[in-house]
This record gives sequence, structure tokens and C-alpha cells, in this order.
Amino acid sequence: MATLLQPLAVSLGDPAGVGPELICAAWVRRHAEKLAPFFVVGSISVLAGAAQARGLEVPLLAIDSPEQAVDCFADVLPVLDIGGLDYAPGAPSVAGAELAFQSLEIATGIVRGGGASALVTAPVAKSRLAEVGFTHPGQTEYVAERCGIAAQNAVMMLAGPSLRVVPVTVHVGLAAVPGLLTAELIQARAGIAAAALERDFGLIQPRIAVAGLNPHAGEDGKFGREEIEIIAPAVEALRVEGFAVTGPLPPDGMFHAAARERYDLAVCMYHDQALIPLKALDFDEGVNVTLGLPIIRTSPDHGTAFAIAGTGEARPNATIAALRMAGECAARRASA
Amino acid sequence: MATLLQPLAVSLGDPAGVGPELICAAWVRRHAEKLAPFFVVGSISVLAGAAQARGLEVPLLAIDSPEQAVDCFADVLPVLDIGGLDYAPGAPSVAGAELAFQSLEIATGIVRGGGASALVTAPVAKSRLAEVGFTHPGQTEYVAERCGIAAQNAVMMLAGPSLRVVPVTVHVGLAAVPGLLTAELIQARAGIAAAALERDFGLIQPRIAVAGLNPHAGEDGKFGREEIEIIAPAVEALRVEGFAVTGPLPPDGMFHAAARERYDLAVCMYHDQALIPLKALDFDEGVNVTLGLPIIRTSPDHGTAFAIAGTGEARPNATIAALRMAGECAARRASA
Repeated sequence: MATLLQPLAVSLGDPAGVGPELICAAWVRRHAEKLAPFFVVGSISVLAGAAQARGLEVPLLAIDSPEQAVDCFADVLPVLDIGGLDYAPGAPSVAGAELAFQSLEIATGIVRGGGASALVTAPVAKSRLAEVGFTHPGQTEYVAERCGIAAQNAVMMLAGPSLRVVPVTVHVGLAAVPGLLTAELIQARAGIAAAALERDFGLIQPRIAVAGLNPHAGEDGKFGREEIEIIAPAVEALRVEGFAVTGPLPPDGMFHAAARERYDLAVCMYHDQALIPLKALDFDEGVNVTLGLPIIRTSPDHGTAFAIAGTGEARPNATIAALRMAGECAARRASA
Repeated sequence: MATLLQPLAVSLGDPAGVGPELICAAWVRRHAEKLAPFFVVGSISVLAGAAQARGLEVPLLAIDSPEQAVDCFADVLPVLDIGGLDYAPGAPSVAGAELAFQSLEIATGIVRGGGASALVTAPVAKSRLAEVGFTHPGQTEYVAERCGIAAQNAVMMLAGPSLRVVPVTVHVGLAAVPGLLTAELIQARAGIAAAALERDFGLIQPRIAVAGLNPHAGEDGKFGREEIEIIAPAVEALRVEGFAVTGPLPPDGMFHAAARERYDLAVCMYHDQALIPLKALDFDEGVNVTLGLPIIRTSPDHGTAFAIAGTGEARPNATIAALRMAGECAARRASA
């Protein structure tokens, strides 16, 4: 089945980070991990250097167009070569940031144009990208805009083997969180996520658990009224829309094993409410998925890790999980 | 060694909750779990009913004074009987709340007076206790006052097999947290906790990890300035005091297995930052310990669970862990 699909397009990430070596490490395990064929939009010289530094034997093949990737993937790592650069792990440069930006741009364009079935992005350094003209807060917002979707309608989901979470607010100070929460925002995020879980993850009527904001979900208003005034109305509105939704739940009681069995997705009110349990449970295996886009986009949930790039320390689990998830979602869309 | 110590005093908790049956279940496993001798301040009729409902054979012996408990503990569960009451699981009553209050009062007094080596409290329903004249927010504050310690100097630590956490703020709405944090408060809580870990838990120079408040610990002030203005100064002050302290750490990166190996205690800024990882990792085994008191006091980290009282569903792990921890701390103080 998988070979009938388009391949996945993988962006290189920052060439000085762990992205290139982890892509190589994932390719080495392509059979064992049953990964769908993918190709890298990047640089053969960087990938060759990264493979060598990690002690991996990775034959690289320059391809001219994405469809060539499917047939050769079993034997070589196909690369759409967009620029030579010396491999310099841990030493980010302007040229490297430019390469990362171009890789993201071209890979996104190919997927958007239907030449690849999904986009998997390797980690970039946002501050470095900003220096070469990248004006978005992150890759998620960039990809959303390239798809014609307003950034607030692109929903970030983090998924590991134990847990899926959607943070309703993300990169803002904790003090700003209560003021940003509205019933409409919670309803919109949860609704987009639920629809995507049904479409791309094969979950029929996914069960959505909505967290409270306050300790014990406010305990009837004693420790904050956001549950009563904002979150409960959002849950009710989602129920009226036909979603299988519960909440607001006491945040500290919803992430142990028995509690997690009762839902498919936890909708969280802030970054750390979502990320603390995800990373505590699934540290090395978190995948960042953008929901609500016309295309499929996943990413390993970690950064460039410049400090350990080229040392072989970085673990490929999250990259492999991101590739596998992208392949599975693509297969579902193809057979829908 | 253990038989040379005073016994532990255990309060009954609400007689309609899971406390009595879990005390019985823990006694049944006293040998396998190597529990120090304990006695219950409570009601033989309630304990007999709870044991029977759970299908446990628990011979109960009325004792007149705590020291009698040590010798008979191997064969019977010793009880300082303070009142007959029918066992009515799941049906809290005024008489039951009065019994729970008296049990707490007497057990605390015995430990405070040196008749028992530590206090282990079973769960009560705070709203029920309030109806019979209990004026404290919880048992922790009550025990602190009975020990002549201001409530703010009694530090709540939650401890499981994987993690120890101290929340700097506790039962307040999330919106109130930033305004309550001061460097002095963080310094005081961490200092009291570190001293107690050294004294009662046998940790020499315990390693303290202080969490940030904001995502990524604020990322150099981009998502909030509390790390720069409040938390980092507290960490520095603790370092000057001679503590082995790190932080402020990105909250989502400090609770996975490898990160937890780097510290003995996580000092957290708010309730759910501490309780989400603790319950995600150690759900059934969390112990609530009050640090900074002249006495040792532990408690299972769960409530009365009226809904499942008498059904046998409640797991005794946390009660056993609370008893074991109290016994170990008492043995350390006795041998100091």
C-alpha cells in the first residue's frame, strides 16, 4: 500500500543542529520501523557529514523530482539537493540558516502542490531564521500561512505513545493565560483537533477531555472562576456540536494511566499543563503535529540541540515517530 | 531496631471514607511491607466493619496507652477506641465528622506529647469537618498550629517513588499565583524542605531543582519576567546559604526520567506544576509529608473517596507508603 503513495517530504532543519543526523538515523531504521518512503529537501554534503559523524552508512542519492524517491528509498536516502555546505555540527551560521529556510520553503511548496503526501520538518533555530528574513514565530505559523490558513486556526497537537495534548494558549507568560482564555477559543481549538483526529488518525468520535485552569478545576469557584465562566460553557458548546467531550477536569487528576484511558485528547489551557505531562511520560518520543491544515505536517518535538549535534548523543525516537505518524496519516487520507 | 521505637499514631480519617479500610489493608500487609508498629486512634466498630466489607481478617485489640501497641502489633491491629459508630461507607454524617476530628486531635496530641514517634493522618472531608467546628483549611494547618508553628512555615511535600515536589503556592487560582510569588517565599519553602530532607530523609546536601513559572522558564524574559525578577534571585540566595540548588528550570523539561536523576526535590511555583507530574508518574503512591514541624507527619495523597468506600476498589498503596515513610523518618530521628 505505502509504495502507491507519494513520498513524504522532509525538511533538513538547521544543518548545524541534530536534524540531519537524526534523519539519517531514521533512514537506517526504515525497515525495522516500517517507515513510508521519504526524501530530504536539503544538502548531500551536510547529510553525508552528519551520517559519517554518527558512524552511519547512508548512501545518498540526488533526485530531480519527488516521485523518484519512492522506488529508490529502500536502498538509498533520496535528496533533493538545494545547496552544498560543509557539515559543521554545533556551529550555526547564516549560510546554514538560509539553507534551513530554503529547505522548509521548498518542502512546504512540494507538499502543498501535491508532490509529496506529508511534510515532516526537522528542528530550526527560530532566532537564527529571523536573521535571514523569516518573519514567523515558528515553523507551524509559516506552514499555516503557506497553506492559506490563519495561524490561530492551525492547532498544535503534541502526541506521544501515552498521551495526546493540545495547548489552547502556548508561548505566553503564565500571568497572561487567564486573560487569553475564551469559550470561543477553547471551542475552536478542540473542534479543529477533534475533526483532525477523526480524519487523519482514524478515531471515530474521538473522546476529548478538557482540563480546568485552576487547582481541582477551581473547586466550585473557590480557587478561580474560569471553569465556571469560560471552560464549562465551552465544553457545553462542544457537546451541543456533537463532540464526545468531558470537563473541565481537575488538571492533576487527568494524566495518570487509568485517567488517560478515558480520552483520546487532552485539551489543556496553557503550555506547561500540556507539556509537563507529555514530556514526563513520553520524553524522547513526542511528535508535534499541526492540525487544521489542508496538508499533513509533523515534526519531532525537540529543538536543534546544537550542544550535542555531531556527538551521536541525540536519540532518533521522536524523528522516527514523526515520520511514522506522517506516513500513517497520509495513508489514511489516501484511502479515504 | 523498629521495635525499640515508639509506635506510629494513625488517625482514623472520615469513617465513611476509604481511610478505615485502607488502614486495615495496610495492617494485613505489615510484614511484607516491613511497616513499623502503629495504632489507630479511632473506633473498633468502624474498623471491624471496614475490614469485613473488604473481606479482610483483622483482629482488633483495644489498648489503653500507645506503648501497648508495639508488642501486640504483629498479631493484632491496636486501637485506642474513642467512640462506637456504625460503619456506613459512603454515607458521611455529623457523628462521623466529629469522630474524625477527635481522632485527629487525640493522635496529634499523643505524637506532640512524645507518646508516638510520628503521625499518619487518614483522609478527611474538609467541608464536613468545618460543620463540626474545625476552622483550619486542612489537616496540615491544624497540625502545624498544634505544634506552635505558623501555617506558612509548615511546608507540604508530595513524595512518590519517582519524584518529590514542594509547591510554593497551593490552593489559589492560577491567576493569583504570579502575584503571590516572592523571592523570600521561595527561599523559605526551599530552605525548610532542604533541612528536613537532610534531617528526616537521610539526604546529605539534598539537590534542589527550582522550577520556572513560565513556558521555557520565560526564555530570557520573553514570556514573563518572574524568573529574572523573583525566582533567579531566590535561587542565588539559596546558593549563598549553602544549598545545592539549580534553576529556574524550564518546567516542561524537568520531570522526565533523566532530568529527575539530577535532583532530590523539585520546588514548584504552583499546585498543578507540582501535582501534575507527581500524579502522572506516581498516581497511587503519593505521600503528603509536612516538613518544618517538630513532629513527623505523613498522609496518603488522596481524599475520602466516599464514592468507592466499602467497595474494595480503593488501593492501599499510598497509605502503606505514608506509613512506611513515617516509620523511616522516625527511625532516623531516633538514631540521630
